[in-house]
Amino acid sequence: MRVSQLLTTTLREAPRDAEGSSHELLLRAGFIRQLTSGVYSYLPLGNQVLRNIMQIVREEMDRIGGQEVILPVLQPEEIWDQHPAFGGPSRLELYGPVLFRLRDRKERAMVIAPTHEEASALLAKEFLRSYRDLPQLLYQFQVKLRDEPRPRGGLLRVREFLMKDLYSFDADQAGLDRSFERVKAAYQAIFLRCELAFLGVQADSGAIGGKESLEFVALTEAGEDTILKCVNCDYAANQEKAEFVRTALPAEPKQPLEEVYTPGCMAISDLAAYLNISAAKTMKAVCYVAGDRMVLVVVRGDLEVNEVKLSNTLNRAGVNSTDLHLATPEELTREGIVAGYTSPLQKDEHILIIADTSLQQGNNFVAGANRVDYHVQHVNYPRDFRVDLWADIASAYDHATCVYCGGTLHAFRGCELGHIFKIGTRYADLFDVTYLDAEGNAHPVQMGSYGIGIGRLMALIVEQWHDDKGIIWPLQIAPYQIALLGLDLDKTSSVAEQLYTDLTVAGLSVLFDDRAETAGVKFNDADLIGLPLRVVVSKRSLKNGGVELKWRARRESRIVPVEDAVQAIQAEIRNGL
Amino acid sequence: MRVSQLLTTTLREAPRDAEGSSHELLLRAGFIRQLTSGVYSYLPLGNQVLRNIMQIVREEMDRIGGQEVILPVLQPEEIWDQHPAFGGPSRLELYGPVLFRLRDRKERAMVIAPTHEEASALLAKEFLRSYRDLPQLLYQFQVKLRDEPRPRGGLLRVREFLMKDLYSFDADQAGLDRSFERVKAAYQAIFLRCELAFLGVQADSGAIGGKESLEFVALTEAGEDTILKCVNCDYAANQEKAEFVRTALPAEPKQPLEEVYTPGCMAISDLAAYLNISAAKTMKAVCYVAGDRMVLVVVRGDLEVNEVKLSNTLNRAGVNSTDLHLATPEELTREGIVAGYTSPLQKDEHILIIADTSLQQGNNFVAGANRVDYHVQHVNYPRDFRVDLWADIASAYDHATCVYCGGTLHAFRGCELGHIFKIGTRYADLFDVTYLDAEGNAHPVQMGSYGIGIGRLMALIVEQWHDDKGIIWPLQIAPYQIALLGLDLDKTSSVAEQLYTDLTVAGLSVLFDDRAETAGVKFNDADLIGLPLRVVVSKRSLKNGGVELKWRARRESRIVPVEDAVQAIQAEIRNGL
Repeated sequence: MRVSQLLTTTLREAPRDAEGSSHELLLRAGFIRQLTSGVYSYLPLGNQVLRNIMQIVREEMDRIGGQEVILPVLQPEEIWDQHPAFGGPSRLELYGPVLFRLRDRKERAMVIAPTHEEASALLAKEFLRSYRDLPQLLYQFQVKLRDEPRPRGGLLRVREFLMKDLYSFDADQAGLDRSFERVKAAYQAIFLRCELAFLGVQADSGAIGGKESLEFVALTEAGEDTILKCVNCDYAANQEKAEFVRTALPAEPKQPLEEVYTPGCMAISDLAAYLNISAAKTMKAVCYVAGDRMVLVVVRGDLEVNEVKLSNTLNRAGVNSTDLHLATPEELTREGIVAGYTSPLQKDEHILIIADTSLQQGNNFVAGANRVDYHVQHVNYPRDFRVDLWADIASAYDHATCVYCGGTLHAFRGCELGHIFKIGTRYADLFDVTYLDAEGNAHPVQMGSYGIGIGRLMALIVEQWHDDKGIIWPLQIAPYQIALLGLDLDKTSSVAEQLYTDLTVAGLSVLFDDRAETAGVKFNDADLIGLPLRVVVSKRSLKNGGVELKWRARRESRIVPVEDAVQAIQAEIRNGL
Repeated sequence: MRVSQLLTTTLREAPRDAEGSSHELLLRAGFIRQLTSGVYSYLPLGNQVLRNIMQIVREEMDRIGGQEVILPVLQPEEIWDQHPAFGGPSRLELYGPVLFRLRDRKERAMVIAPTHEEASALLAKEFLRSYRDLPQLLYQFQVKLRDEPRPRGGLLRVREFLMKDLYSFDADQAGLDRSFERVKAAYQAIFLRCELAFLGVQADSGAIGGKESLEFVALTEAGEDTILKCVNCDYAANQEKAEFVRTALPAEPKQPLEEVYTPGCMAISDLAAYLNISAAKTMKAVCYVAGDRMVLVVVRGDLEVNEVKLSNTLNRAGVNSTDLHLATPEELTREGIVAGYTSPLQKDEHILIIADTSLQQGNNFVAGANRVDYHVQHVNYPRDFRVDLWADIASAYDHATCVYCGGTLHAFRGCELGHIFKIGTRYADLFDVTYLDAEGNAHPVQMGSYGIGIGRLMALIVEQWHDDKGIIWPLQIAPYQIALLGLDLDKTSSVAEQLYTDLTVAGLSVLFDDRAETAGVKFNDADLIGLPLRVVVSKRSLKNGGVELKWRARRESRIVPVEDAVQAIQAEIRNGL
């Protein structure tokens, strides 16, 4: 392909609204353009990268016996509006406003699918009859829509995206475990072939459901997730799920409860400074509302409430938490709670009090007095306050202690690359997807769900593979493998054109910069677009004995004679970096 | 692939709701399943056919210099809500209820795109600066949603489908003409490679807009379209656009207008029989409503009103026809019109009277009297009735006369395979997409639009390639090229398994029926699924000297020795049918 014909334009300056390296570089290098918030078009360069990633993903899915299908985007809302027999929210409730809903011309409620567990289970139901039909791995590449509240970072969090999703169907838990391990290995192979630095971590299963999930996370400062990784053992988890050891505090003799004047000390840090105590000697009380229930959450003052853990704790306790939110000033007032001085010393049995296990360490805490500018000190459990539920509802933090080995957890920023779930029988139960065993008895099918966002994968490769000049594409991902730069074309045109023809005939993937632009513009554009191997034909290179070869990721270059160029370039590409 | 592992099940009986051959066969052979009205999942066999068709389409698009992109499905409604400067409906109005519309979480009006003229024009706007950037051909494969009023025939008319759409951008009309010819040639190549019998015909441009379009039509009884093709010259057109010569009627001496009693003669056929005259001596008057305008349409009694021609005639006359519909009984009553006896003898100037040019031939017509059971005879123009607009608003018919050569038009049933449009500057004008010529003057970009529905293409191949036993896939389209049937596997297993391995290692595309089923089931399934070359390993074939080779499309078979089988099969596949 010739740059003069390629639909693209590089930008010298980052667009003002660009957030993060991949967003800025993919815009500047002409790979993507935004149509509306969280919705992007892919230009030819961007499309080619997507296709290269899809090819790798398809090969790895086929290698483990995956069968490719296409599941519909337009779905009847009713298949989302099913409640599990043992209770719990429907997927319509779990997704809430993230789901794009509409009505068709006959006023039937429809959904644009954000994921395909329902559709794949319904398809499997028609074809899975006997244990001999299992296991099955079905996968597809399909556009998904999710109305994310805060699209950000270009392709990192969008409202429309291309996803490879796979669904496994097995006869029993052992089968599901085997399928899970097969897909896990395939995902590792994919991310390695994409030359990504990544971790597999424990994570919350969210709206997909199921008991166990593994999240693959790319390590990058651009990520929204915090990952806790033990430096000693294998434990790694997303902060939304990470366990940690609560530091012990020495037990002191209990002192009598006492109100204390703490003017303007609404924040824990102000309070601790004013009273000259450590934050760990205070109690942090935060009010949430779930459904019509006021939930008072208490953690030790040196910790933070983790809303995902809290939500799961509520669900396990039978409280529907799909609309969980911080209590509004109106909701606080209605319950007689003073914002900023919320007290755990609640007599009202209607308020559900959940305490983090950290408060089982230490005593004589300082807590809010439910009165502006006042706290109470020497708060002791159970003398002074009630707890309805003890749970792990605090966020792990950098340098916390690992519960498995006592090692130190280190915090990293990361972004989800893929997520794999052992769902179990949720959808089989909802849609009656069963198979007959060898004795003719019916059993529900065990299901797993596995997803990779192809566009986000592309963005995360850029997050990990760039420098201050532009992108540095891995060889198997690059839209073209070779950037052929023709400089001084008035003098070198015949050599450059012949080399372009020869490389193309040799089956190499070449982008030929044949424009009437200066050497500076061409070098800058080549660095920005980031094709792996740069080949320069210029007056100088010819004077020096031929054409110049340089890898984008390296400093050094070398000259090869024109007549050896095709062979030398083939060898470079074959051997890679 | 082994049939025992493939996610599919053949059905002996056609599902009750199957309409037409492709629908029935694709369901029975396990290629597709319906999720909801007009929305299908593709099973592994169906997906592989789609991928083979896409590969052919991609090769032909790349060959003419097309650049592949991805344009978003989710779009702001405002880009659809633009009115041309010179008037006429917006696309929102043109598509009406076919468009799936929704609101996002911020209550912004959004559209799920049924086509991508707007999105491609907006993308081009960012990259096309100078005449040197032109021409450009952008294409994509993308899912589209259209809320069709009557989904039918399985994949023939659906609400969700995968489309290859291409948009051309040129500097001037001559450039657009060249791009149009290039894409036209590529489309012909695609349909030929898909082994389809097709015609390129003139057709209405509908909601895409533009002055000229060419529709590619597959000839099939399953089609909804009627095509008129001249047996003498090249003229061919969709009935919605087809021109034809109105047969001449001898002029008689005008006779005086006279009311005549015609009991129960509401239909033209009854009227002609009752009065013992030919239908061509009567006038057919039909009332439509467009906006708030009553439109009385008159054609000669032997012809039918063509609503597409009527709608275009109204638009050209400046009457918005996006809601054109037959007048309801209430609307007729409001205007004092008697249904079934509608008379063209209207004094009311508020009613727009449009007459087909057929009424310029002949005189002394019989027409409705606007009174139940009465007609008037000896109706003559302009003595007895007024015409506001003469136009071609009647449908051409089998054996009508060609306006270009006087030859005979033959009518065929057909279904649209693809449609290509010279749009002109409609979208360039709406979104200010301009380029600078060599002198630095800005001009609007000329645009073309070109589309192929991939799923419908698959269905139309089945419509043309099947017999009473099942599908007969063309070699390049088939999900697998070879059906290897292992019969009597208790005796032949080692030969069959070895042959499967050898064929696979040789790079051939094989589906191995390794199931514990009877020979009858396997033969029937193979015929139903329709893979091109059948290879049978059975006790009988081995006794006869080897394995049996038979093309699905042929009657005869032959035996080749086991040791020569791979080479013989390779040769068959290489040479094709």
